[in-house]
Amino acid sequence: MRERVGAGRRALTCSALKPQGIPASALAALAHDLALGGLDYIKDDHGLADQRYSPFHERVAACADSVERANRITGGKTRYVPSIGGNLDQLRHQIERARGVGVSAVLVVPMIAGLANFHALVREFPGVAFMTHPAMAGASRIAPPLLLGKLFRLFGADATVFPNHGGRFGYSPETCRALAAAARSFWGGLAPTMPVPAGGMTTERVAEMLAVYGPDTMLLIGGALLSAQDRLTEATRAFSRRVADHVYA
Amino acid sequence: MRERVGAGRRALTCSALKPQGIPASALAALAHDLALGGLDYIKDDHGLADQRYSPFHERVAACADSVERANRITGGKTRYVPSIGGNLDQLRHQIERARGVGVSAVLVVPMIAGLANFHALVREFPGVAFMTHPAMAGASRIAPPLLLGKLFRLFGADATVFPNHGGRFGYSPETCRALAAAARSFWGGLAPTMPVPAGGMTTERVAEMLAVYGPDTMLLIGGALLSAQDRLTEATRAFSRRVADHVYA
Repeated sequence: MRERVGAGRRALTCSALKPQGIPASALAALAHDLALGGLDYIKDDHGLADQRYSPFHERVAACADSVERANRITGGKTRYVPSIGGNLDQLRHQIERARGVGVSAVLVVPMIAGLANFHALVREFPGVAFMTHPAMAGASRIAPPLLLGKLFRLFGADATVFPNHGGRFGYSPETCRALAAAARSFWGGLAPTMPVPAGGMTTERVAEMLAVYGPDTMLLIGGALLSAQDRLTEATRAFSRRVADHVYA
Repeated sequence: MRERVGAGRRALTCSALKPQGIPASALAALAHDLALGGLDYIKDDHGLADQRYSPFHERVAACADSVERANRITGGKTRYVPSIGGNLDQLRHQIERARGVGVSAVLVVPMIAGLANFHALVREFPGVAFMTHPAMAGASRIAPPLLLGKLFRLFGADATVFPNHGGRFGYSPETCRALAAAARSFWGGLAPTMPVPAGGMTTERVAEMLAVYGPDTMLLIGGALLSAQDRLTEATRAFSRRVADHVYA
Protein backbone atom coordinates (compact mmCIF):
# COMPACT_ATOMS: atom_id res chain seq x y z
CA MET A 1 0.00 0.00 0.00
CA ARG A 2 2.90 2.28 0.82
CA GLU A 3 5.06 1.69 -2.27
CA ARG A 4 2.18 2.25 -4.64
CA VAL A 5 1.84 5.86 -3.54
CA GLY A 6 5.54 6.63 -3.01
CA ALA A 7 5.10 7.46 0.66
CA GLY A 8 8.15 7.39 2.87
CA ARG A 9 7.97 6.42 6.52
CA ARG A 10 4.73 8.15 7.39
CA ALA A 11 1.15 7.03 7.86
CA LEU A 12 -0.99 6.93 4.73
CA THR A 13 -4.15 8.94 4.11
CA CYS A 14 -7.46 8.02 2.58
CA SER A 15 -10.93 9.45 2.04
CA ALA A 16 -14.21 8.07 0.74
CA LEU A 17 -16.49 8.99 -2.15
CA LYS A 18 -20.13 9.34 -1.12
CA PRO A 19 -23.05 9.75 -0.70
CA GLN A 20 -25.12 7.15 -2.47
CA GLY A 21 -27.39 8.46 -5.15
CA ILE A 22 -25.24 11.01 -6.92
CA PRO A 23 -24.08 10.33 -10.47
CA ALA A 24 -20.61 9.14 -11.48
CA SER A 25 -19.69 12.61 -12.72
CA ALA A 26 -20.37 14.14 -9.29
CA LEU A 27 -18.30 11.45 -7.55
CA ALA A 28 -15.50 12.08 -10.03
CA ALA A 29 -15.60 15.80 -9.25
CA LEU A 30 -15.27 15.00 -5.53
CA ALA A 31 -12.39 12.62 -6.31
CA HIS A 32 -10.64 15.44 -8.20
CA ASP A 33 -10.93 17.89 -5.31
CA LEU A 34 -9.80 15.26 -2.79
CA ALA A 35 -6.82 14.29 -4.95
CA LEU A 36 -5.77 17.93 -5.23
CA GLY A 37 -5.54 17.85 -1.44
CA GLY A 38 -2.74 15.28 -1.66
CA LEU A 39 -4.29 12.06 -0.32
CA ASP A 40 -2.76 8.66 -0.90
CA TYR A 41 -5.98 6.76 -1.52
CA ILE A 42 -9.52 7.73 -2.42
CA LYS A 43 -11.94 4.87 -2.05
CA ASP A 44 -15.54 4.42 -3.01
CA ASP A 45 -18.03 4.18 -0.20
CA HIS A 46 -18.67 0.46 0.22
CA GLY A 47 -22.31 0.97 -0.69
CA LEU A 48 -21.39 2.06 -4.20
CA ALA A 49 -21.89 -0.92 -6.46
CA ASP A 50 -23.37 -0.99 -9.93
CA GLN A 51 -26.39 1.20 -9.35
CA ARG A 52 -28.30 2.64 -12.27
CA TYR A 53 -27.56 6.23 -11.20
CA SER A 54 -23.83 5.44 -11.10
CA PRO A 55 -22.94 2.32 -13.10
CA PHE A 56 -19.69 0.68 -12.06
CA HIS A 57 -17.90 1.02 -15.38
CA GLU A 58 -18.87 4.65 -15.83
CA ARG A 59 -17.89 5.56 -12.26
CA VAL A 60 -14.56 3.79 -12.35
CA ALA A 61 -13.52 5.35 -15.65
CA ALA A 62 -14.62 8.83 -14.52
CA CYS A 63 -13.00 8.68 -11.07
CA ALA A 64 -9.75 7.10 -12.27
CA ASP A 65 -9.50 9.80 -14.90
CA SER A 66 -10.24 12.69 -12.55
CA VAL A 67 -7.67 11.44 -10.03
CA GLU A 68 -5.09 11.13 -12.82
CA ARG A 69 -5.78 14.69 -13.93
CA ALA A 70 -5.34 15.92 -10.37
CA ASN A 71 -2.07 13.98 -10.10
CA ARG A 72 -0.75 15.77 -13.18
CA ILE A 73 -1.47 19.09 -11.45
CA THR A 74 -0.01 18.16 -8.06
CA GLY A 75 2.74 15.81 -9.19
CA GLY A 76 1.30 13.38 -6.62
CA LYS A 77 0.47 9.68 -6.80
CA THR A 78 -3.05 9.53 -5.41
CA ARG A 79 -4.78 6.22 -6.18
CA TYR A 80 -8.47 5.60 -6.69
CA VAL A 81 -9.90 2.47 -5.01
CA PRO A 82 -13.26 1.39 -6.45
CA SER A 83 -15.72 -0.69 -4.45
CA ILE A 84 -16.47 -4.02 -6.12
CA GLY A 85 -19.56 -6.13 -5.47
CA GLY A 86 -21.72 -8.95 -6.76
CA ASN A 87 -21.03 -12.60 -7.45
CA LEU A 88 -17.56 -13.95 -8.18
CA ASP A 89 -17.92 -13.52 -11.93
CA GLN A 90 -19.06 -9.93 -11.52
CA LEU A 91 -16.23 -9.21 -9.07
CA ARG A 92 -13.67 -10.55 -11.55
CA HIS A 93 -15.19 -8.56 -14.36
CA GLN A 94 -15.12 -5.37 -12.28
CA ILE A 95 -11.47 -5.86 -11.40
CA GLU A 96 -10.60 -6.41 -15.06
CA ARG A 97 -12.44 -3.25 -16.01
CA ALA A 98 -10.79 -1.29 -13.22
CA ARG A 99 -7.35 -2.49 -14.29
CA GLY A 100 -8.19 -1.42 -17.80
CA VAL A 101 -8.32 2.20 -16.62
CA GLY A 102 -5.14 1.96 -14.56
CA VAL A 103 -6.61 1.07 -11.17
CA SER A 104 -4.52 -1.30 -9.04
CA ALA A 105 -6.39 -1.42 -5.72
CA VAL A 106 -10.00 -2.29 -4.94
CA LEU A 107 -12.32 -2.24 -1.93
CA VAL A 108 -14.10 -5.52 -1.20
CA VAL A 109 -16.52 -6.58 1.54
CA PRO A 110 -15.38 -10.14 2.31
CA MET A 111 -18.34 -11.11 4.46
CA ILE A 112 -20.77 -10.14 1.71
CA ALA A 113 -18.71 -11.49 -1.19
CA GLY A 114 -18.04 -14.68 0.77
CA LEU A 115 -14.57 -15.32 2.19
CA ALA A 116 -13.91 -18.07 -0.35
CA ASN A 117 -14.64 -15.69 -3.20
CA PHE A 118 -12.51 -12.95 -1.68
CA HIS A 119 -9.62 -15.36 -1.43
CA ALA A 120 -10.14 -16.56 -5.01
CA LEU A 121 -9.73 -12.94 -6.17
CA VAL A 122 -6.58 -12.49 -4.09
CA ARG A 123 -5.05 -15.52 -5.80
CA GLU A 124 -6.21 -14.60 -9.28
CA PHE A 125 -5.08 -10.97 -9.16
CA PRO A 126 -1.67 -10.90 -7.44
CA GLY A 127 -0.94 -7.40 -8.80
CA VAL A 128 -4.05 -5.89 -7.24
CA ALA A 129 -4.15 -4.57 -3.66
CA PHE A 130 -7.25 -5.48 -1.67
CA MET A 131 -8.65 -3.11 0.92
CA THR A 132 -11.32 -4.85 3.00
CA HIS A 133 -14.46 -3.33 4.49
CA PRO A 134 -15.96 -4.69 7.73
CA ALA A 135 -19.67 -4.68 6.75
CA MET A 136 -21.53 -7.83 7.91
CA ALA A 137 -18.50 -8.90 9.87
CA GLY A 138 -20.57 -9.96 12.86
CA ALA A 139 -18.84 -7.81 15.47
CA SER A 140 -21.43 -8.81 18.03
CA ARG A 141 -20.51 -12.49 17.72
CA ILE A 142 -16.99 -12.69 16.29
CA ALA A 143 -14.12 -10.84 17.96
CA PRO A 144 -13.09 -8.05 15.57
CA PRO A 145 -9.34 -8.61 16.12
CA LEU A 146 -9.81 -12.21 15.00
CA LEU A 147 -12.00 -11.57 11.97
CA LEU A 148 -10.93 -8.13 10.70
CA GLY A 149 -7.32 -8.46 11.83
CA LYS A 150 -6.27 -12.08 11.70
CA LEU A 151 -8.66 -13.82 9.32
CA PHE A 152 -8.96 -11.06 6.71
CA ARG A 153 -5.14 -10.94 6.73
CA LEU A 154 -4.96 -14.70 6.31
CA PHE A 155 -7.31 -14.56 3.32
CA GLY A 156 -5.21 -11.84 1.70
CA ALA A 157 -6.24 -8.32 2.77
CA ASP A 158 -3.60 -5.64 2.12
CA ALA A 159 -5.45 -3.06 4.23
CA THR A 160 -8.33 -3.57 6.65
CA VAL A 161 -10.84 -0.81 7.34
CA PHE A 162 -12.35 -0.95 10.84
CA PRO A 163 -14.40 1.36 13.05
CA ASN A 164 -12.05 3.28 15.29
CA HIS A 165 -13.03 3.88 18.90
CA GLY A 166 -14.64 7.19 19.71
CA GLY A 167 -16.31 7.48 16.33
CA ARG A 168 -19.71 6.40 15.06
CA PHE A 169 -19.25 2.80 16.21
CA GLY A 170 -18.79 1.00 19.48
CA TYR A 171 -15.36 -0.67 19.44
CA SER A 172 -13.26 -0.10 22.54
CA PRO A 173 -9.68 1.23 22.35
CA GLU A 174 -8.47 -2.22 23.45
CA THR A 175 -10.34 -3.93 20.62
CA CYS A 176 -8.86 -1.50 18.09
CA ARG A 177 -5.32 -1.95 19.37
CA ALA A 178 -5.69 -5.74 19.36
CA LEU A 179 -7.06 -5.60 15.83
CA ALA A 180 -4.11 -3.52 14.58
CA ALA A 181 -1.71 -5.88 16.32
CA ALA A 182 -3.34 -8.94 14.72
CA ALA A 183 -3.12 -7.26 11.32
CA ARG A 184 0.56 -6.28 11.58
CA SER A 185 2.45 -8.52 13.97
CA PHE A 186 4.84 -11.21 12.74
CA TRP A 187 3.05 -14.31 11.51
CA GLY A 188 5.40 -16.71 9.77
CA GLY A 189 5.80 -15.70 6.15
CA LEU A 190 2.42 -14.00 5.97
CA ALA A 191 2.42 -10.39 4.74
CA PRO A 192 1.10 -7.84 7.22
CA THR A 193 -2.16 -5.98 6.63
CA MET A 194 -2.31 -2.23 7.06
CA PRO A 195 -4.88 -1.19 9.67
CA VAL A 196 -7.27 1.56 8.53
CA PRO A 197 -9.10 3.07 11.54
CA ALA A 198 -12.18 4.92 10.29
CA GLY A 199 -15.81 5.81 10.95
CA GLY A 200 -16.53 9.37 12.02
CA MET A 201 -12.86 10.38 12.26
CA THR A 202 -11.68 14.00 12.00
CA THR A 203 -8.48 15.86 11.22
CA GLU A 204 -8.42 17.01 14.83
CA ARG A 205 -7.86 13.41 15.91
CA VAL A 206 -4.88 12.73 13.63
CA ALA A 207 -2.23 13.24 16.29
CA GLU A 208 -4.04 11.08 18.80
CA MET A 209 -4.59 8.29 16.28
CA LEU A 210 -1.01 8.30 15.07
CA ALA A 211 0.20 8.21 18.67
CA VAL A 212 -1.84 5.02 19.12
CA TYR A 213 -1.32 3.31 15.77
CA GLY A 214 2.09 4.58 14.61
CA PRO A 215 3.20 5.15 11.02
CA ASP A 216 2.23 1.75 9.57
CA THR A 217 -1.38 2.84 9.45
CA MET A 218 -3.73 4.41 6.95
CA LEU A 219 -6.02 7.11 8.34
CA LEU A 220 -9.39 7.30 6.65
CA ILE A 221 -11.48 10.45 7.01
CA GLY A 222 -14.61 10.60 4.89
CA GLY A 223 -17.59 12.65 5.95
CA ALA A 224 -15.60 15.20 7.96
CA LEU A 225 -13.69 16.20 4.81
CA LEU A 226 -16.70 16.06 2.50
CA SER A 227 -18.61 18.37 4.82
CA ALA A 228 -16.13 21.12 3.93
CA GLN A 229 -17.95 21.29 0.57
CA ASP A 230 -16.37 24.02 -1.59
CA ARG A 231 -13.35 24.04 0.70
CA LEU A 232 -12.86 20.31 0.21
CA THR A 233 -9.38 20.58 -1.25
CA GLU A 234 -8.17 22.87 1.54
CA ALA A 235 -9.64 20.61 4.23
CA THR A 236 -8.02 17.62 2.59
CA ARG A 237 -4.69 19.38 2.34
CA ALA A 238 -4.83 20.16 6.05
CA PHE A 239 -5.43 16.47 6.78
CA SER A 240 -2.56 15.37 4.49
CA ARG A 241 -0.17 17.90 6.04
CA ARG A 242 -1.04 16.95 9.56
CA VAL A 243 -0.26 13.30 8.82
CA ALA A 244 2.94 14.14 6.93
CA ASP A 245 4.19 16.49 9.66
CA HIS A 246 3.38 14.24 12.60
CA VAL A 247 6.33 13.53 14.87
CA TYR A 248 6.19 9.99 16.22
CA ALA A 249 7.22 9.49 19.83
CA MET B 1 -39.72 -30.06 -2.27
CA ARG B 2 -42.94 -32.00 -1.92
CA GLU B 3 -43.30 -33.30 -5.49
CA ARG B 4 -39.74 -34.57 -5.60
CA VAL B 5 -40.44 -37.10 -2.85
CA GLY B 6 -44.01 -37.99 -3.83
CA ALA B 7 -45.47 -36.83 -0.51
CA GLY B 8 -49.18 -36.10 -0.38
CA ARG B 9 -50.59 -33.44 1.89
CA ARG B 10 -48.42 -34.07 4.91
CA ALA B 11 -45.37 -32.40 6.40
CA LEU B 12 -42.01 -33.56 5.08
CA THR B 13 -39.24 -35.18 7.11
CA CYS B 14 -35.51 -34.69 7.08
CA SER B 15 -32.43 -35.72 9.02
CA ALA B 16 -28.78 -34.75 8.96
CA LEU B 17 -25.54 -36.65 8.38
CA LYS B 18 -22.90 -35.95 11.01
CA PRO B 19 -20.60 -35.71 12.89
CA GLN B 20 -17.59 -34.08 11.30
CA GLY B 21 -14.53 -36.22 11.03
CA ILE B 22 -15.93 -39.58 9.98
CA PRO B 23 -15.19 -40.90 6.49
CA ALA B 24 -17.58 -40.84 3.55
CA SER B 25 -18.27 -44.55 3.92
CA ALA B 26 -19.48 -44.08 7.51
CA LEU B 27 -21.75 -41.19 6.49
CA ALA B 28 -23.11 -43.32 3.65
CA ALA B 29 -23.90 -46.13 6.13
CA LEU B 30 -25.81 -43.64 8.29
CA ALA B 31 -27.65 -42.37 5.20
CA HIS B 32 -28.66 -45.93 4.37
CA ASP B 33 -30.10 -46.59 7.83
CA LEU B 34 -31.91 -43.25 7.84
CA ALA B 35 -33.36 -43.87 4.38
CA LEU B 36 -34.64 -47.28 5.47
CA GLY B 37 -36.62 -45.38 8.10
CA GLY B 38 -38.59 -43.65 5.35
CA LEU B 39 -37.45 -40.02 5.48
CA ASP B 40 -38.06 -37.58 2.64
CA TYR B 41 -34.70 -35.83 2.77
CA ILE B 42 -31.31 -36.63 4.27
CA LYS B 43 -29.00 -33.67 4.27
CA ASP B 44 -25.34 -33.29 5.04
CA ASP B 45 -24.46 -31.35 8.14
CA HIS B 46 -23.60 -27.86 6.92
CA GLY B 47 -20.06 -28.25 8.23
CA LEU B 48 -19.36 -31.05 5.77
CA ALA B 49 -17.47 -29.54 2.88
CA ASP B 50 -14.53 -30.99 0.99
CA GLN B 51 -12.45 -32.20 3.92
CA ARG B 52 -9.60 -34.60 3.39
CA TYR B 53 -11.23 -37.27 5.59
CA SER B 54 -14.43 -37.04 3.54
CA PRO B 55 -13.85 -35.45 0.11
CA PHE B 56 -16.96 -33.96 -1.47
CA HIS B 57 -17.00 -36.14 -4.58
CA GLU B 58 -16.43 -39.34 -2.66
CA ARG B 59 -19.08 -38.50 -0.05
CA VAL B 60 -21.72 -37.47 -2.56
CA ALA B 61 -21.27 -40.57 -4.68
CA ALA B 62 -21.32 -42.86 -1.64
CA CYS B 63 -24.33 -41.25 0.06
CA ALA B 64 -26.41 -40.92 -3.12
CA ASP B 65 -25.74 -44.57 -3.85
CA SER B 66 -26.59 -45.79 -0.35
CA VAL B 67 -29.85 -43.83 -0.34
CA GLU B 68 -30.74 -45.27 -3.75
CA ARG B 69 -30.08 -48.78 -2.48
CA ALA B 70 -32.31 -48.14 0.52
CA ASN B 71 -35.02 -46.79 -1.79
CA ARG B 72 -34.98 -50.01 -3.78
CA ILE B 73 -35.60 -51.90 -0.54
CA THR B 74 -38.35 -49.63 0.80
CA GLY B 75 -39.89 -48.53 -2.49
CA GLY B 76 -39.53 -45.01 -1.12
CA LYS B 77 -38.22 -41.80 -2.67
CA THR B 78 -35.78 -40.53 -0.09
CA ARG B 79 -33.48 -37.82 -1.46
CA TYR B 80 -29.93 -37.05 -0.39
CA VAL B 81 -29.06 -33.35 -0.05
CA PRO B 82 -25.31 -32.68 -0.04
CA SER B 83 -23.82 -29.58 1.54
CA ILE B 84 -21.93 -27.44 -0.96
CA GLY B 85 -19.28 -24.89 -0.06
CA GLY B 86 -16.41 -22.80 -1.37
CA ASN B 87 -16.18 -20.11 -4.01
CA LEU B 88 -18.68 -19.76 -6.84
CA ASP B 89 -16.67 -21.94 -9.21
CA GLN B 90 -16.34 -24.67 -6.60
CA LEU B 91 -20.07 -24.46 -5.79
CA ARG B 92 -20.94 -24.88 -9.48
CA HIS B 93 -18.56 -27.77 -9.83
CA GLN B 94 -20.02 -29.49 -6.76
CA ILE B 95 -23.57 -29.12 -8.08
CA GLU B 96 -22.52 -30.58 -11.43
CA ARG B 97 -20.89 -33.52 -9.71
CA ALA B 98 -23.92 -34.05 -7.48
CA ARG B 99 -26.25 -33.99 -10.48
CA GLY B 100 -24.01 -36.54 -12.12
CA VAL B 101 -24.93 -39.05 -9.41
CA GLY B 102 -28.66 -38.24 -9.51
CA VAL B 103 -28.83 -35.60 -6.78
CA SER B 104 -31.35 -32.81 -7.37
CA ALA B 105 -31.26 -30.82 -4.13
CA VAL B 106 -28.36 -29.19 -2.29
CA LEU B 107 -27.78 -27.46 1.01
CA VAL B 108 -26.13 -24.04 0.79
CA VAL B 109 -25.15 -21.45 3.42
CA PRO B 110 -26.04 -18.16 1.68
CA MET B 111 -24.33 -15.87 4.18
CA ILE B 112 -21.06 -17.74 3.79
CA ALA B 113 -21.31 -18.28 0.03
CA GLY B 114 -22.40 -14.68 -0.42
CA LEU B 115 -26.00 -13.87 -1.35
CA ALA B 116 -25.01 -12.85 -4.87
CA ASN B 117 -23.33 -16.20 -5.44
CA PHE B 118 -26.29 -18.10 -3.98
CA HIS B 119 -28.60 -16.29 -6.35
CA ALA B 120 -26.30 -16.95 -9.32
CA LEU B 121 -26.60 -20.69 -8.57
CA VAL B 122 -30.40 -20.47 -8.32
CA ARG B 123 -30.50 -18.93 -11.78
CA GLU B 124 -27.97 -21.28 -13.32
CA PHE B 125 -29.51 -24.48 -11.98
CA PRO B 126 -33.30 -24.16 -12.28
CA GLY B 127 -33.77 -27.92 -11.90
CA VAL B 128 -31.99 -28.04 -8.55
CA ALA B 129 -33.77 -27.40 -5.24
CA PHE B 130 -31.88 -25.21 -2.77
CA MET B 131 -32.19 -25.78 0.95
CA THR B 132 -30.61 -22.91 2.88
CA HIS B 133 -28.76 -23.06 6.20
CA PRO B 134 -28.81 -20.10 8.61
CA ALA B 135 -25.12 -20.09 9.65
CA MET B 136 -23.62 -16.58 9.83
CA ALA B 137 -27.06 -15.08 9.31
CA GLY B 138 -26.50 -12.44 11.95
CA ALA B 139 -29.53 -13.20 14.10
CA SER B 140 -28.32 -10.74 16.70
CA ARG B 141 -28.50 -7.87 14.22
CA ILE B 142 -30.87 -8.87 11.41
CA ALA B 143 -34.41 -10.00 12.18
CA PRO B 144 -34.56 -13.73 11.32
CA PRO B 145 -38.01 -13.48 9.69
CA LEU B 146 -36.59 -10.88 7.31
CA LEU B 147 -33.35 -12.63 6.44
CA LEU B 148 -34.14 -16.36 6.70
CA GLY B 149 -37.77 -15.99 5.67
CA LYS B 150 -38.14 -13.09 3.30
CA LEU B 151 -34.70 -12.44 1.81
CA PHE B 152 -33.58 -16.07 1.42
CA ARG B 153 -36.94 -16.67 -0.31
CA LEU B 154 -36.39 -13.66 -2.55
CA PHE B 155 -32.96 -14.94 -3.56
CA GLY B 156 -34.40 -18.36 -4.39
CA ALA B 157 -34.48 -20.72 -1.40
CA ASP B 158 -36.83 -23.70 -1.79
CA ALA B 159 -36.55 -24.64 1.89
CA THR B 160 -35.10 -22.61 4.77
CA VAL B 161 -33.62 -24.31 7.82
CA PHE B 162 -33.93 -22.27 11.01
CA PRO B 163 -33.49 -22.88 14.75
CA ASN B 164 -36.86 -23.75 16.22
CA HIS B 165 -37.79 -22.35 19.62
CA GLY B 166 -37.21 -24.57 22.61
CA GLY B 167 -34.20 -26.26 21.05
CA ARG B 168 -30.50 -25.51 21.22
CA PHE B 169 -30.95 -21.91 20.05
CA GLY B 170 -32.65 -18.81 21.33
CA TYR B 171 -35.40 -17.86 18.87
CA SER B 172 -38.76 -17.09 20.41
CA PRO B 173 -41.98 -18.81 19.26
CA GLU B 174 -43.09 -15.47 17.79
CA THR B 175 -39.89 -15.15 15.75
CA CYS B 176 -40.33 -18.67 14.41
CA ARG B 177 -43.95 -18.12 13.45
CA ALA B 178 -43.11 -14.83 11.75
CA LEU B 179 -40.27 -16.52 9.89
CA ALA B 180 -42.53 -19.31 8.60
CA ALA B 181 -45.14 -16.73 7.57
CA ALA B 182 -42.54 -14.69 5.66
CA ALA B 183 -41.36 -17.84 3.90
CA ARG B 184 -44.81 -19.04 2.85
CA SER B 185 -47.29 -16.19 2.60
CA PHE B 186 -48.44 -14.82 -0.75
CA TRP B 187 -45.87 -12.51 -2.33
CA GLY B 188 -46.78 -11.63 -5.90
CA GLY B 189 -45.56 -14.32 -8.25
CA LEU B 190 -42.76 -15.44 -5.95
CA ALA B 191 -42.67 -19.14 -5.06
CA PRO B 192 -43.03 -19.93 -1.36
CA THR B 193 -40.16 -21.37 0.66
CA MET B 194 -40.74 -24.37 2.90
CA PRO B 195 -39.86 -23.64 6.54
CA VAL B 196 -37.60 -26.25 8.17
CA PRO B 197 -37.63 -25.82 11.97
CA ALA B 198 -34.60 -27.59 13.42
CA GLY B 199 -31.87 -27.56 16.06
CA GLY B 200 -32.22 -30.00 18.93
CA MET B 201 -35.69 -31.24 17.89
CA THR B 202 -37.07 -34.63 18.92
CA THR B 203 -39.74 -37.03 17.75
CA GLU B 204 -41.66 -36.25 20.96
CA ARG B 205 -42.16 -32.69 19.69
CA VAL B 206 -43.59 -33.64 16.28
CA ALA B 207 -47.25 -33.11 17.22
CA GLU B 208 -46.54 -29.77 18.86
CA MET B 209 -44.50 -28.57 15.90
CA LEU B 210 -47.06 -29.64 13.33
CA ALA B 211 -49.80 -27.94 15.34
CA VAL B 212 -47.80 -24.72 15.07
CA TYR B 213 -46.46 -24.97 11.53
CA GLY B 214 -49.04 -27.09 9.71
CA PRO B 215 -48.39 -29.50 6.84
CA ASP B 216 -46.41 -27.16 4.55
CA THR B 217 -43.34 -27.69 6.68
CA MET B 218 -40.34 -29.94 6.75
CA LEU B 219 -39.36 -31.28 10.17
CA LEU B 220 -35.65 -31.82 10.62
CA ILE B 221 -34.41 -34.06 13.43
CA GLY B 222 -30.71 -34.82 13.42
CA GLY B 223 -28.90 -35.67 16.63
CA ALA B 224 -31.92 -37.13 18.41
CA LEU B 225 -32.24 -39.79 15.71
CA LEU B 226 -28.51 -40.41 15.36
CA SER B 227 -28.24 -41.00 19.11
CA ALA B 228 -30.36 -44.14 18.64
CA GLN B 229 -27.21 -45.69 17.13
CA ASP B 230 -27.93 -49.32 16.16
CA ARG B 231 -31.65 -48.63 16.43
CA LEU B 232 -31.34 -45.71 14.00
CA THR B 233 -33.73 -47.12 11.39
CA GLU B 234 -36.41 -47.87 14.01
CA ALA B 235 -36.08 -44.41 15.56
CA THR B 236 -36.32 -42.86 12.11
CA ARG B 237 -39.35 -44.95 11.22
CA ALA B 238 -41.08 -43.77 14.39
CA PHE B 239 -40.40 -40.16 13.38
CA SER B 240 -41.67 -40.73 9.82
CA ARG B 241 -44.83 -42.46 11.07
CA ARG B 242 -45.60 -39.79 13.60
CA VAL B 243 -45.43 -37.13 10.87
CA ALA B 244 -47.46 -39.21 8.41
CA ASP B 245 -50.15 -40.04 10.98
CA HIS B 246 -50.52 -36.54 12.39
CA VAL B 247 -54.08 -35.21 12.30
CA TYR B 248 -54.12 -31.49 11.61
CA ALA B 249 -56.66 -29.41 13.51
